[in-house]
Amino acid sequence: METEAQNLALLSDRYEFTMAAAYFKNKMLAPATFSLFIREYPENRGYFVSAGLERVLHFLEEFHFNQEDLDYLNQDGDFSDDFLHHLSGMRFTGDVHAIPEGRLFFKDEPVLEVTAPIIEGQLVETFVINAINLQVSLATKASRCVQAAQGRRLVDFSLRRAQGTDAGLQLGRASFIGGFAGTSNLLAGKVYGVPTSGTMAHSFVTSFSEEIDAFHAFAETFPDNTVLLIDTYDTIQGAHKAVEVGKKMAEKGHQLRGVRLDSGDMAELSKDVRKIFDDAGLKDVKIFASGGFDEFKITDVLERGAEIDAFGVGTKMGVSADAPYTDIAYKLVQYEDRPVLKLSSGKKTLVAPKQVFRKRENGRLSGDWIALREEKIEGADALMKPVMREGKRLGDKEELAEIRERLSDEINRLDERYRRLKDPAEYPVDLGPELEKLQKEVIHEVKEKELGES
Amino acid sequence: METEAQNLALLSDRYEFTMAAAYFKNKMLAPATFSLFIREYPENRGYFVSAGLERVLHFLEEFHFNQEDLDYLNQDGDFSDDFLHHLSGMRFTGDVHAIPEGRLFFKDEPVLEVTAPIIEGQLVETFVINAINLQVSLATKASRCVQAAQGRRLVDFSLRRAQGTDAGLQLGRASFIGGFAGTSNLLAGKVYGVPTSGTMAHSFVTSFSEEIDAFHAFAETFPDNTVLLIDTYDTIQGAHKAVEVGKKMAEKGHQLRGVRLDSGDMAELSKDVRKIFDDAGLKDVKIFASGGFDEFKITDVLERGAEIDAFGVGTKMGVSADAPYTDIAYKLVQYEDRPVLKLSSGKKTLVAPKQVFRKRENGRLSGDWIALREEKIEGADALMKPVMREGKRLGDKEELAEIRERLSDEINRLDERYRRLKDPAEYPVDLGPELEKLQKEVIHEVKEKELGES
Repeated sequence: METEAQNLALLSDRYEFTMAAAYFKNKMLAPATFSLFIREYPENRGYFVSAGLERVLHFLEEFHFNQEDLDYLNQDGDFSDDFLHHLSGMRFTGDVHAIPEGRLFFKDEPVLEVTAPIIEGQLVETFVINAINLQVSLATKASRCVQAAQGRRLVDFSLRRAQGTDAGLQLGRASFIGGFAGTSNLLAGKVYGVPTSGTMAHSFVTSFSEEIDAFHAFAETFPDNTVLLIDTYDTIQGAHKAVEVGKKMAEKGHQLRGVRLDSGDMAELSKDVRKIFDDAGLKDVKIFASGGFDEFKITDVLERGAEIDAFGVGTKMGVSADAPYTDIAYKLVQYEDRPVLKLSSGKKTLVAPKQVFRKRENGRLSGDWIALREEKIEGADALMKPVMREGKRLGDKEELAEIRERLSDEINRLDERYRRLKDPAEYPVDLGPELEKLQKEVIHEVKEKELGES
Repeated sequence: METEAQNLALLSDRYEFTMAAAYFKNKMLAPATFSLFIREYPENRGYFVSAGLERVLHFLEEFHFNQEDLDYLNQDGDFSDDFLHHLSGMRFTGDVHAIPEGRLFFKDEPVLEVTAPIIEGQLVETFVINAINLQVSLATKASRCVQAAQGRRLVDFSLRRAQGTDAGLQLGRASFIGGFAGTSNLLAGKVYGVPTSGTMAHSFVTSFSEEIDAFHAFAETFPDNTVLLIDTYDTIQGAHKAVEVGKKMAEKGHQLRGVRLDSGDMAELSKDVRKIFDDAGLKDVKIFASGGFDEFKITDVLERGAEIDAFGVGTKMGVSADAPYTDIAYKLVQYEDRPVLKLSSGKKTLVAPKQVFRKRENGRLSGDWIALREEKIEGADALMKPVMREGKRLGDKEELAEIRERLSDEINRLDERYRRLKDPAEYPVDLGPELEKLQKEVIHEVKEKELGES
């Protein structure tokens, strides 16, 4: 496939390369630190889930330009031979500190910092933002759906309307981290080992002359794994036909696993369908529901007493429809030993390499501090870990199950007011005293120098 | 990169495979027609841009399962050896009719129909929806930004916050079809031949001890292609420094191409900055603006008299933030020679293979008809073309420039009321008389058979 055969080093904004060329011409080869953070919460968000780090580390380990890339860059004559030669031998040789996947983080907190020769740190910017932005958005959205479902199983159904193939694939991973039981996406199953599920669509039902024939045919093919989609013509009549099939399966020693509702008023229909199965003595048949679910619709149907055992959660989760992007930025915070920042209106940055500290009280998260990397905050845990040194990954790839467990534990330790699905309260994040002092000094110095203020 | 080395035949919902296994067991190998269409307009949308077909055709041509895919499917024991053997030799052997890329289409109109042995038509569903949904969403959103910009240049800046690498790449293509002048995305430049642009970010400015040094250094590296980002510390003071650099460049026989604003009140700042350059005799220096632009913000700043020559359009276009997905569906409409449909509440489908007809009056688009494939609508053009027969593509790959031109022409022929950016009127789409008749017959028959109504 054309998009998949490509080396991703050029999946980058052109300005990364023009800046790199200018650094190169000006012999600026010193180390720089870039900090990745989210400036604001989208509406109704009070936390973010760290996710996407594994992909960033993989990218950095593999980072290189091939001849085709260099030929393309050479085409328009903007880049000198010396610079292209420099790129031809380039590997990523920097250090990365990051908050591990599956931990919560909050606005302004660096979730990842890169320290590398400035050209390398600059050239990887676009990919790093893209990878983290997507998985953070999706894992955060998924975790909200999991909260709403109160223990019921959720399965990711969103591949078809995900924004592209890569988002579709990563969704399988991010939603599993967020607490989903699995995904419909077979490639995510193959690549990430996430459990997959799926049985039938309307096309299967309509391809038979009668609905009941489709039900029987499926049950014969998968006698121990049949979930019948019952809304193709009419949900209630579909339920009665499913009872007939379920009874026939039982006679043969098998069991109808469930039925799926995909349209109509799910709260009311699920109660009616539950009663039909219970009255027929098929109390073990589960009710699955899909169609437009997200954390808000799940909450709504459950509040209305829906008898739904599991949800297929699709598009709205899969594109994080109410917050399809985050205000994420990757900013230079230090060059050589000089802490730097920009003052652009509404977009201030925090200087220097940093650390994020988190306190717990009685097992609950009680507050975070953003501090200088070497600062100490008494009684608090340092969240950012060294994960790459001189281009080499430190430690093994983490298991998805472990990341998922970490998130589940941490969300449980977050007070309900900070994680409620609408209008959450803002979790307290302060600046460490040394960072605050340095920040003030640098702002003062920059204003004096650039704006002539004193 | 792990995600890129994968064969995409498994980028599919598991239910496609369980259904295929059940078709196979039941010896259902006859041809089926599936129809791809969008059920509803997202808010403020009155048309869709056809885009993504090229990718679908490429996927269908390459469609196959490799040993790794088959081994994965074999893992959980749900699929029989016979079925897996059937998959191992499978290629896509069907026909495709579609509305060419760059044409407008409207709700309920099939933008693409697949006729193939039912197993093949079923197995390609997920990818086909994913590919078309994304590019249609993005090309439509981009075309709206182009309308708002009234002839000013737009450049796609959205890669970093696009939903994944694939969306980022396809954005470069879709936004170009939509009328953008180019993209920041180098890989889109390499893969699709879209023009790329980009100069500097804040990191470049802050990496120097003084802003003016950064400006001079960049101008020396790219004397004929310098756009200075002037809002790092203060936009007005930045503009004065840019004047200084521009004058120095002029002394050496070069010309400062432009400056970029990236924060603050763009309408007001652009007027102030324009005046600073005009007063300094640098009337040819262009003003670029970026930061949160979409069709609504572009309209707003232009209405307020902004002196902006070109826009970098980022995230909100790149994820189609106000409409991050479409209500797109791929439905079985015929099996063997039997037209089929579902009746699910709010999700009815139109039976049988179809054609879309469009009338023009005085060069303006005056109305569409959805009709049976073989139906004729007097004086109207048939929009769906045969693009693949028995798995082989018909005709050459279209040039992007040609697709872009086709869209520009067609949008110009669409009355303003149907394409205005807020609350557009609904473009008239009727059913052809023969389709309408068949649709009624099939609904009657299905209700009689499945619901016992007569």
